[in-house]
Amino acid sequence: MQAFFLPEIFGYREVIYMQMKKPDAKKLAVGICGASGYTGMELLRILALHPQVEVTAITSEKSAGRKVHEIFPFLSAYTGLIFEPMTREKLLGKADLFFLALPHGASQEAVHYFFSRGKKVIDLSADYRIRDPKTYAAWYGLDHTRQSTLKKAVYGLPEIYRNKIGKAALIANPGCYPTSAVLGMMPAVRNKLLDLSTVIIDSKSGTSGAGRKADLGISFCEVNEGFKAYGLVTHRHTPEIEQEISNLAGKKVVVNFTPHLLPVDRGILTTIYAKLKKKADTKTAISLFSRAYAKEPFVRVLAEGSLPNIKHVRGTNMCEIGVKVNDRTNTLIIVSAIDNLVKGASGQAIQNMNLMMGFDETEGLRQLALYP
Amino acid sequence: MQAFFLPEIFGYREVIYMQMKKPDAKKLAVGICGASGYTGMELLRILALHPQVEVTAITSEKSAGRKVHEIFPFLSAYTGLIFEPMTREKLLGKADLFFLALPHGASQEAVHYFFSRGKKVIDLSADYRIRDPKTYAAWYGLDHTRQSTLKKAVYGLPEIYRNKIGKAALIANPGCYPTSAVLGMMPAVRNKLLDLSTVIIDSKSGTSGAGRKADLGISFCEVNEGFKAYGLVTHRHTPEIEQEISNLAGKKVVVNFTPHLLPVDRGILTTIYAKLKKKADTKTAISLFSRAYAKEPFVRVLAEGSLPNIKHVRGTNMCEIGVKVNDRTNTLIIVSAIDNLVKGASGQAIQNMNLMMGFDETEGLRQLALYP
Amino acid sequence: MQAFFLPEIFGYREVIYMQMKKPDAKKLAVGICGASGYTGMELLRILALHPQVEVTAITSEKSAGRKVHEIFPFLSAYTGLIFEPMTREKLLGKADLFFLALPHGASQEAVHYFFSRGKKVIDLSADYRIRDPKTYAAWYGLDHTRQSTLKKAVYGLPEIYRNKIGKAALIANPGCYPTSAVLGMMPAVRNKLLDLSTVIIDSKSGTSGAGRKADLGISFCEVNEGFKAYGLVTHRHTPEIEQEISNLAGKKVVVNFTPHLLPVDRGILTTIYAKLKKKADTKTAISLFSRAYAKEPFVRVLAEGSLPNIKHVRGTNMCEIGVKVNDRTNTLIIVSAIDNLVKGASGQAIQNMNLMMGFDETEGLRQLALYP
Amino acid sequence: MQAFFLPEIFGYREVIYMQMKKPDAKKLAVGICGASGYTGMELLRILALHPQVEVTAITSEKSAGRKVHEIFPFLSAYTGLIFEPMTREKLLGKADLFFLALPHGASQEAVHYFFSRGKKVIDLSADYRIRDPKTYAAWYGLDHTRQSTLKKAVYGLPEIYRNKIGKAALIANPGCYPTSAVLGMMPAVRNKLLDLSTVIIDSKSGTSGAGRKADLGISFCEVNEGFKAYGLVTHRHTPEIEQEISNLAGKKVVVNFTPHLLPVDRGILTTIYAKLKKKADTKTAISLFSRAYAKEPFVRVLAEGSLPNIKHVRGTNMCEIGVKVNDRTNTLIIVSAIDNLVKGASGQAIQNMNLMMGFDETEGLRQLALYP
Repeated sequence: MQAFFLPEIFGYREVIYMQMKKPDAKKLAVGICGASGYTGMELLRILALHPQVEVTAITSEKSAGRKVHEIFPFLSAYTGLIFEPMTREKLLGKADLFFLALPHGASQEAVHYFFSRGKKVIDLSADYRIRDPKTYAAWYGLDHTRQSTLKKAVYGLPEIYRNKIGKAALIANPGCYPTSAVLGMMPAVRNKLLDLSTVIIDSKSGTSGAGRKADLGISFCEVNEGFKAYGLVTHRHTPEIEQEISNLAGKKVVVNFTPHLLPVDRGILTTIYAKLKKKADTKTAISLFSRAYAKEPFVRVLAEGSLPNIKHVRGTNMCEIGVKVNDRTNTLIIVSAIDNLVKGASGQAIQNMNLMMGFDETEGLRQLALYP
Repeated sequence: MQAFFLPEIFGYREVIYMQMKKPDAKKLAVGICGASGYTGMELLRILALHPQVEVTAITSEKSAGRKVHEIFPFLSAYTGLIFEPMTREKLLGKADLFFLALPHGASQEAVHYFFSRGKKVIDLSADYRIRDPKTYAAWYGLDHTRQSTLKKAVYGLPEIYRNKIGKAALIANPGCYPTSAVLGMMPAVRNKLLDLSTVIIDSKSGTSGAGRKADLGISFCEVNEGFKAYGLVTHRHTPEIEQEISNLAGKKVVVNFTPHLLPVDRGILTTIYAKLKKKADTKTAISLFSRAYAKEPFVRVLAEGSLPNIKHVRGTNMCEIGVKVNDRTNTLIIVSAIDNLVKGASGQAIQNMNLMMGFDETEGLRQLALYP
Repeated sequence: MQAFFLPEIFGYREVIYMQMKKPDAKKLAVGICGASGYTGMELLRILALHPQVEVTAITSEKSAGRKVHEIFPFLSAYTGLIFEPMTREKLLGKADLFFLALPHGASQEAVHYFFSRGKKVIDLSADYRIRDPKTYAAWYGLDHTRQSTLKKAVYGLPEIYRNKIGKAALIANPGCYPTSAVLGMMPAVRNKLLDLSTVIIDSKSGTSGAGRKADLGISFCEVNEGFKAYGLVTHRHTPEIEQEISNLAGKKVVVNFTPHLLPVDRGILTTIYAKLKKKADTKTAISLFSRAYAKEPFVRVLAEGSLPNIKHVRGTNMCEIGVKVNDRTNTLIIVSAIDNLVKGASGQAIQNMNLMMGFDETEGLRQLALYP
Repeated sequence: MQAFFLPEIFGYREVIYMQMKKPDAKKLAVGICGASGYTGMELLRILALHPQVEVTAITSEKSAGRKVHEIFPFLSAYTGLIFEPMTREKLLGKADLFFLALPHGASQEAVHYFFSRGKKVIDLSADYRIRDPKTYAAWYGLDHTRQSTLKKAVYGLPEIYRNKIGKAALIANPGCYPTSAVLGMMPAVRNKLLDLSTVIIDSKSGTSGAGRKADLGISFCEVNEGFKAYGLVTHRHTPEIEQEISNLAGKKVVVNFTPHLLPVDRGILTTIYAKLKKKADTKTAISLFSRAYAKEPFVRVLAEGSLPNIKHVRGTNMCEIGVKVNDRTNTLIIVSAIDNLVKGASGQAIQNMNLMMGFDETEGLRQLALYP
C-alpha cells in the first residue's frame, strides 16, 4: 500500500472550503482574541457562513501553534487557521476588526491597544460595559485604567442603541443575563408600566455560561440532574442590568437578580416580576410588547397562551418573550429566552459587527433553532 | 438440557426477600391504589425497606393481573405482589391503611369509601387538601361531594401539623410545590418578617412531577435541553400555598407562584422573594430558620455561603433550605430544595404514616442522597 | 391604548423573511409531506437557508389549517406557510419536488403517485430502500404493491451512488443506522480487508430517532439517565445494511446489528468490529479510509489518536469516522458518528436534492456543529 | 434576637443520627481512605444504613480537618466525622477494616501496610486485581513491589469466589467494566457455549466512572449531549477481564473490549457478542443463565422479551442480564447492566465486607432502584 499523507486530504477539504468562502480583498478581515473558549468557538461557528467576513487571526495561549481542526475537529472548515499567542503587535496588521473574548480585567488594555490604533473592536468581556468606573471598581474589584477609552464605548444592545452602534468603533458587547433581562423589561419600563422598586429577575442559565475550563464545580456529575441558585445578591451582572434599566427609566433603579445553573448546554430563561403601576391586562401588555419589537428581526413576542422555551432559540440569535398579567397580585410577569452563546454573546457581537460595517443586520444569523 | 422454570428462580429470590421482610401478623398491612404511576412506584421503593409494613395490595387498571416485576423488573423484590383492578369491596379487607395515588376528582369517593369504613387513609391527590370547597371548586372545576369527610382530613405537613397527624385517620398529603414553598416560608411568616403583599414564589420542578404517561409534551426530545415556565398564574397549587401561608400569617395572603419544567427526573427548587417588614441581616435570618427547624429530622438549614441543590436531596425525604438578605432591595431570598417524589409526595406520605401509627418518624426514610 | 393586531407584526417579520429569501420564479418549488415530525421539521430548518429552494407546501393531518409558527414558534421564518391535509391532487401542482416523511407502508402509494406524474420524489421512509420485495415483505410485514416504481428508485447514499442520484427522479433516502454503518464499513469492504462472517455493528442512537409522538417509552423520565439495547436481532435496518454491504462485497453478507437508545436528542455512534482478512495496522487503515473519502465533503476521517463524538457532528451533515486495529485480536474497529436527523435523514435528503437538481452538493448544508 | 449557634442544630441532628445508628462496641469499626471521591462518598452513603458498621475514620488530603457535612451537606448524617490526612500510623488503631479508594499505584503500599498489621483490607484500586505482576507492569506501567501480599489477595467477585472471600483478609475489589463483563459471560463460558476467539465486549459507562475531579474533558458541556468511544484497544480493564474469562475457560482468552462514555451520572451497560460453539436458542440460553444465577441475590436474569437498562439498577447492587441468540449469525448476544458505583465498586466492596465478616450478604444493600 502506497504512502498517503493526511494533510493532502485536509488540504483537499480546505480547498472546498476556500471555494465555498472565496476569500477576496473585499472581505472584512477579522481577528478573534481568546478563540478557544466557548464564545470564541461560537464566533468561528457563525462566521464560517458569513459571506462578507474572513477570519484571519485567532489567539489561544494554550493551543498556540496548532491548527483549529487539530483541537476542534468539528471546526474542520477552518483548516487553514492556526492559533497564535496574543502578541498584539503581530496581530495588529492582520485584521480590521477584533473580537475580544478575554477575561474581564485582561480586556482593559487589549481593547485600548487595538482601538487606539484605529481598529474596530467588539469586546465580549465586562470591562467596557459599566459606564461608571466607581461601580465597575465596586463590583469587579478592579480600577478601570482606560477611562477615556471607556467613554468611547457603545453598549452593544441593538434594540436600544442601534444608531449609536452603527457609528461606533468600540462596542461593549452586553452580558448574557443583562441581554435577557433588559430585552424582557424594555417595553414595560419605557411605557412606565411598572413599580420599579419591586423588580425581581429570576434567571436560569445553561452551563456553557460558566465558560470552557477544568473545574470540579462544572464537571458533568456535579451539574447533571442538579439545579441550584448561585451568586445570590452578588452576581456582577446586577449593576449592568441596573444601569440599563435606570437609563430606560430615567432614574436610578435597584433590582433583585438571582442566577441559577441549569443542567443544559445552552440557554437562559429569565422570569421577571414587578408590580403594575398602571392597570393593564395580558392582552394589552402583549400588544405593547409586540409593537415595541415589531421591527426587530431578533425579538419574537409570543401570542397569548404561548410561553418561551430555551429550546426554541437554541443556536439562534433570537430572543423569545412571553408576557402575562397576574390580576390577583397586580403583577406583570415577563419570561424571556435567549441562547446565552448567541444573542447572549457571539451572535449579538456579530449583529453589532453587521451594524458597524453596514452589512445586512441579519447576515450570518438567520439559522433557525436546532430543535430538538 | 433440562427444562428450567423462571418462576423457580424468582421464587428463590422471593424467599430471600421474604426472609428480609419477615412478614408477620404484627406488621401493618398497606394497600396502594394507583401503584403504577411514579408516586405509587416510589411508595413501593421506600416501603420495601420499612420493617413494620407489609404491602398487601396494589391496584392498576392497565396492569391488572400482572406481577409487579413483570412490569417493573427493578421492583423484583415484590415478586409475590400482583396488580389488581381497583375494586373497593375486594380491597377493603386486604389492608389497614390505604395510600391513594389517584387523579384528583377520582379520590373524592375512594377516600370516603375507605375512611368511612374505618380504614386509615393517606390521599396523595389534591382532593382533600383545600379546606374551602368553594376554592376547590374554583381552581379544580369540580364540586366536592364529600364535604363532611373533607372536614376530617388533616393536611399532612408534619413540620406544622405533627400533633394533629398523630391523631388523624385521614391525611391530605401536601402537593410537591406547596411543600417546598411552605417549608421555605414558614419561619419567616411565623416571625412576621415579611411584607406578605410582595411574595414571589418561583419554582422549578423535575419532569416526574408531570406523572407517568404517554404525552408528547413530556417526551424526551421536547423536554431535554429545554426549560420553560408553564401554568403561569393558573397553577392549581397556588390556592394550596395561599391556604397554608394564610394560616401561618393569620390573615389572607395572595402570592405569585410560577412553576417551571426542569430537564431532570426529580427535584424541586423554589426561590422565594419577599420584602422585609423588619430589618434583618442574613446571619439573623439563618439563625431564625435554624432554630425553627432545629428538631426537624427532614429539614436542613444551610450555613451562610451554602445554597441548596436538588441533587443534594435526590431520593431522600430531606428539605434543604438556604436564606439570604438583599440589603440593597430590603428583600429576603429563600431557596428550598426537595425531591418532588419523596418529601414532595411518597416520602412525606410515609412520614405521615409513621406518625399516624406511632412508628419512629424516620423509619424507612433514612437513606442519604444518591449523589452523583 | 390603541388596538394592535399580532398578524401585523408577524406580517412584518414575514416581509423580512421574504426579503431574505427573495422567492422568485427560478427557485425550485418543494413540498414536504409529513412536515410536523422531526425529519419534516429538520427539512424546514435546513431549507430556510437554501437559496435555490422555496418550500411551497407542507402537510400535517393534525395541524391542518394552521400556520407553521403557531405550532412551532421557532420556525417563525415560515410565517406564510400553512399546514394542509395530504390531499395528493391538491398538492400535485404546488411543487416540482416532494420530500415524503411518512410512515413506512404509507409511502408506497404516495411515492408512486407523485413519481408517476412526473414529479421528483425523495422518500425518507423505508418503502423504496429494499431492492428485493421478498426481503421487504419478510422484515416489514407488508407486500410491496408498486414494484415497477421500486425498480426506478435509487438508494440515496451519495458516497456510493452519486452518479445515479444525479440522474434519478426517485430517491430512497437511506435509514439513519444504515448510513452510519455503511459509510463506516465501505472502504474496508471495497478493499476486501474484512472477514465478513464476523461483522458486529453496535449502534447507539439519540431519542429523536424514535420520532415525534406521545409514547410512554420515550417520555423524559423513562429515557433520561437510562441506556438500553432494543430491537435485538430483529431491527428493520438490518436487511438494509446487509443489502448495501453485500453490494459492496459482491456476495451475500449477514451481520449482527444491535441498536441502543441514548439519552440525548440527536446523534448516532456506531462501533463496528470485524476480523481482518489481510494483515493491517492502524496507520494503513486510516490511510485507506482517508483516501477513500478524500473528495467527500461530508465525511471526515480522523487522524490517529482522535475518535468521533456525536457532539462533533450535531446539526451537521458530516459523518466522522475513526479507525483502529486491535493487533491482539486481529480485529478492525471502526467508529462512525452522524447526526441522525441530518446525515441520517433530512440533510442527506437535501444533499440528494442538490445532486438531482445540479445545485452545489453542499448548498444549505455547510453549517458547523452546534458545540457545545 | 438572641445569638444562635449552628453547631447546636447539627448537634441535635447528630443526636438523632446517633440514636438511629446506636454505635456500640460490637459494631465493626471501618476506615475509608480516599473518602472524598465518588466511590468513597458511595461507601459513606451505603454504610449509613448498615446496622453492624460504624465508620470511624475517613481520609482526604484536600479536605483534611473539615467535617463531612461541611463539604457534602447531603451526607449530613455523618456530622461527627472529620476528614483527616492519610497518616497510616494514626489510622491504624481507629478501625478493624479499611476500604482503600486510592489511585492505582498508591494502593500498593497502603494495602500492604494495613494488611501486614493484621487489618482486613478491601482495595478498590486495580493494584491487587491482576495476578500476574508482568501483566500488571505491562498495562499499568508500574512494577508491583508487594508481590507476596499480592498472592494473598482474593478477587472480590462473590458470584465466582464467594467461599474464598469469606475466608480472606485482603480483597481486590473488581473493576466496574470487568464486573459487568465477567458476570455477563460467566454462565456461557463455564458451559463452553462460546467460540472464545470471537468475543466482542462493547461497554458504555456513565461519567462518574471517570472519578471526581476538575478536568475539561469531563466538564458538563463536553459530555452532555455527547457520546464517544475512548481508550480503544488500550483500556486497562482489558487484562482484568481476560484474566477472569481465562480462569473460567481454563485457557488463555483474548478479547476485544471497547469502553464508551455515556452522558449520565451512573451505570454501565455492556453488550457482549460471541459466536456459538454449540447450537442453542434464546430459550435455552436464558434457562442456562437463570440456573447459574438462581441463588444469587444480586444478579437478575430477565425473561425473554425484556432487556436490561442502567436505570433499572441505579443506586443498587444488582446486575441485570438479558440474553438472546442471533440464529442468522450463530451469535450469542448478552447484555448486562450494573451501577458502576455500586455493584461496580462500593456496593460490591460492602458485599465483600459482609462475606468476610459473616454478616448477611445483602446487609445494607437491599435498596431498590431509584426510578425514575
